[in-house]
Amino acid sequence: MNSTSEQDSTAAPTTHGRGCNVALLGFGTVGSSVAKILCERPDSDVRLTHILNRNVARKKVDWLPSSVKWTEKIDDILSSDANIVVEVMGGLQPTEDWIRRVLSSGKSVVTANKQIIARCGPELISLAAQTNQQILYGASVAGGVPVISGLQSGLAGDELFKIRGILNGTCNYILSQMESKGVAFADALREAQKLGFAEADPTEDIDGLDARAKLTILARVGLHCNVDPETITVQSISRIEAIDFEYASQLGCTIRQIAGAEISSAGLKTGAEAEQAHAERSSLLAAVGPALVALSSPLARVEGSQNLVVTTGTYGGETVFGGHGAGGHPTAVAVVSDILAIAHSKQAGTSTGAEDLKASASKTPSAKTSQVSADYTAKHYLRFFVKDQPGIIACLATILSSFDINIDSVLQKPGCPKTRLPFLITLEECKASLVERALRQLNVLEFMVEPCLHLPIL
Amino acid sequence: MNSTSEQDSTAAPTTHGRGCNVALLGFGTVGSSVAKILCERPDSDVRLTHILNRNVARKKVDWLPSSVKWTEKIDDILSSDANIVVEVMGGLQPTEDWIRRVLSSGKSVVTANKQIIARCGPELISLAAQTNQQILYGASVAGGVPVISGLQSGLAGDELFKIRGILNGTCNYILSQMESKGVAFADALREAQKLGFAEADPTEDIDGLDARAKLTILARVGLHCNVDPETITVQSISRIEAIDFEYASQLGCTIRQIAGAEISSAGLKTGAEAEQAHAERSSLLAAVGPALVALSSPLARVEGSQNLVVTTGTYGGETVFGGHGAGGHPTAVAVVSDILAIAHSKQAGTSTGAEDLKASASKTPSAKTSQVSADYTAKHYLRFFVKDQPGIIACLATILSSFDINIDSVLQKPGCPKTRLPFLITLEECKASLVERALRQLNVLEFMVEPCLHLPIL
Repeated sequence: MNSTSEQDSTAAPTTHGRGCNVALLGFGTVGSSVAKILCERPDSDVRLTHILNRNVARKKVDWLPSSVKWTEKIDDILSSDANIVVEVMGGLQPTEDWIRRVLSSGKSVVTANKQIIARCGPELISLAAQTNQQILYGASVAGGVPVISGLQSGLAGDELFKIRGILNGTCNYILSQMESKGVAFADALREAQKLGFAEADPTEDIDGLDARAKLTILARVGLHCNVDPETITVQSISRIEAIDFEYASQLGCTIRQIAGAEISSAGLKTGAEAEQAHAERSSLLAAVGPALVALSSPLARVEGSQNLVVTTGTYGGETVFGGHGAGGHPTAVAVVSDILAIAHSKQAGTSTGAEDLKASASKTPSAKTSQVSADYTAKHYLRFFVKDQPGIIACLATILSSFDINIDSVLQKPGCPKTRLPFLITLEECKASLVERALRQLNVLEFMVEPCLHLPIL
Repeated sequence: MNSTSEQDSTAAPTTHGRGCNVALLGFGTVGSSVAKILCERPDSDVRLTHILNRNVARKKVDWLPSSVKWTEKIDDILSSDANIVVEVMGGLQPTEDWIRRVLSSGKSVVTANKQIIARCGPELISLAAQTNQQILYGASVAGGVPVISGLQSGLAGDELFKIRGILNGTCNYILSQMESKGVAFADALREAQKLGFAEADPTEDIDGLDARAKLTILARVGLHCNVDPETITVQSISRIEAIDFEYASQLGCTIRQIAGAEISSAGLKTGAEAEQAHAERSSLLAAVGPALVALSSPLARVEGSQNLVVTTGTYGGETVFGGHGAGGHPTAVAVVSDILAIAHSKQAGTSTGAEDLKASASKTPSAKTSQVSADYTAKHYLRFFVKDQPGIIACLATILSSFDINIDSVLQKPGCPKTRLPFLITLEECKASLVERALRQLNVLEFMVEPCLHLPIL
């Protein structure tokens, strides 16, 4: 066994023969899957050499080559001969500092950390470029689903203007359980927690913060729009009730947590219009939250903890990427794919990494910092709980019509308690902001038991 | 206007400034879409400089920059300053010769030609490497669906062992029309021809030769198995009748043309087993033809001319890629994505292209020439037309049982003509070769009106 904090004699990163040395920061679920895949690769041109984790003694496993050095100190990694450092420890600090130090020390980084990439991806990419290194983050969105690389290479020739996805497996598991079993939100959440699909504190998932970070990254890579994740509106799925699935089903829909971003001005266009549209990319429609999706849509068919991303391009139309959005092994596939990409570009000559990177950075130079709006145009789903009394619908209809909002349908389920009577109004297509303004008047009416649940119908 | 065969003064390919020059061989549907996308890109680092087509006078359009040179002679392209030559003229000859000459002249190639890549892809890739160039072919499979790049980059970290896809839009259009409208094959084909979804001579599509070429390429890129396309068994969809959709529906299935390749020995494994499995990659199960797919499968939900590819990996499980598999614009997106990939690698330094290529060639060094078997293990669908008489089922059951084949179900549709009575036998899981041996005895029985239709149930 190696001593925990063994120092390497070689301080400068070098490749032995043709391979690359890989250090792993974090040996949890994803980290140990990455280690497993790297060790099982038959013709491996990448070699796991270091693992950093807290409490190494507790973490050590017997299936790793004895040559792998374990440590608890980042300095051991920084001074090691690792060429690529894989960050799968999660969290914001000290992780972000460590990533910066790794890049500054002339090593490349592969990370699955969506929060860090969403917040300071462009900055880390330029830091990497300064030291002729790369930072890749394919695992940060949709786990094993190769959507980042798809946007960067296979769809590079298109001009994408819309990305919609189911990016959070926890929400999708909860909502698809509510749909198929008719259970309440709290029960579905408890079940998800018991099965390990939801954290003890599920806020990040339920309230859309996880999906928001992923959407920020997709918008940057696919739509070339740089947005501050904090400016993207999120709506929690926690207010969805069993009755919403009943109403949704009557409308030929189901409910999913949808992360969507769209450049509204894009579309089929030519020459000067295209340049204009490009300039307009400084404004982006984006939101994360529960939405009604037609049962015929691929988004409606995503079951359990699966992820799906649908991109729409001016030339290629809709393209779908689907698969396992989480879990140790699928996420590790994305990590290892990034490791191989860096290893192959390093193999192609040391300077190539940097040149490649500059070239690849120049692919998305137009990722401008964008204003974000959540003011989508769609049909709307308004679900009310009221104390029953005569004239409620007339009252609501009058207010809505004063805003020039047209009612599409009114649905009521018989046999509900008069003190918390649910009913549904769907609206014809209009701007979300208009509906929100009307709701400010509706929500304070004395017969309202609670504020209206307002969802888009996609 | 430029003269048709204007010679360039610069014979050696050079990039003006930072961009790349692109020559187009073929100005049909895909070629003109490629030209359109290149001309509409606002910040273009690639420039369309030459177009080759027969009968240039008839082809010229007014929306291209006047700087674009038109020609009918390949020598004009070979001696031009184009760095990347895009082959979208199709056909085998002179196309293949021209691709070789282009590569030998020190230019890179982007092609959508599945037949040429299926037959001699590896050879062309090494020819390209000899002159420090690249040949990319993302458009050769599934049009705008970025599956080739997905296999090469995003899923590089996985070990894939199965690929199944709907790779031919014509067949899928015909079969989904038969399914939804209950029409006969001939009527659906005629409709597809009228709408431009099928060629006047639809043999390549209907009989599976088109999908076979694409499957050959996917098996090479994704499963690292080099196979001669001619050795992959194909079955035409032309024998599918309306009644097969009725039976399929009773079984909870529909019928699609499925192209599938699978390494049967793969699966979850470690160390020595992995090496063994790798060695066994020299044998591949592969076939193209109509198959029953469960309605719950994503393959069953592919409508019209859409394409879908489902890959299965040891670590990442199932990943789905879907979108427009044909059409000028979607195919052109794949072509332009490849152009950009080459342009960016050329930008990163002239020698980089070659090094990159060698590196990328070394990614798939293990693409061994493989033996192909069509002897899959599955449940089987046997549809018979017989002259009705007593004892038919007893007779068939006796023969099947003499081969140790177990019957799963027998379905008969009432009210059919006694002289051509259809009925269905489904079999429990067994090898296809065993069923074929039994069918040799069944098909010659005197009450058989025609040979049994035998499909796998996936």
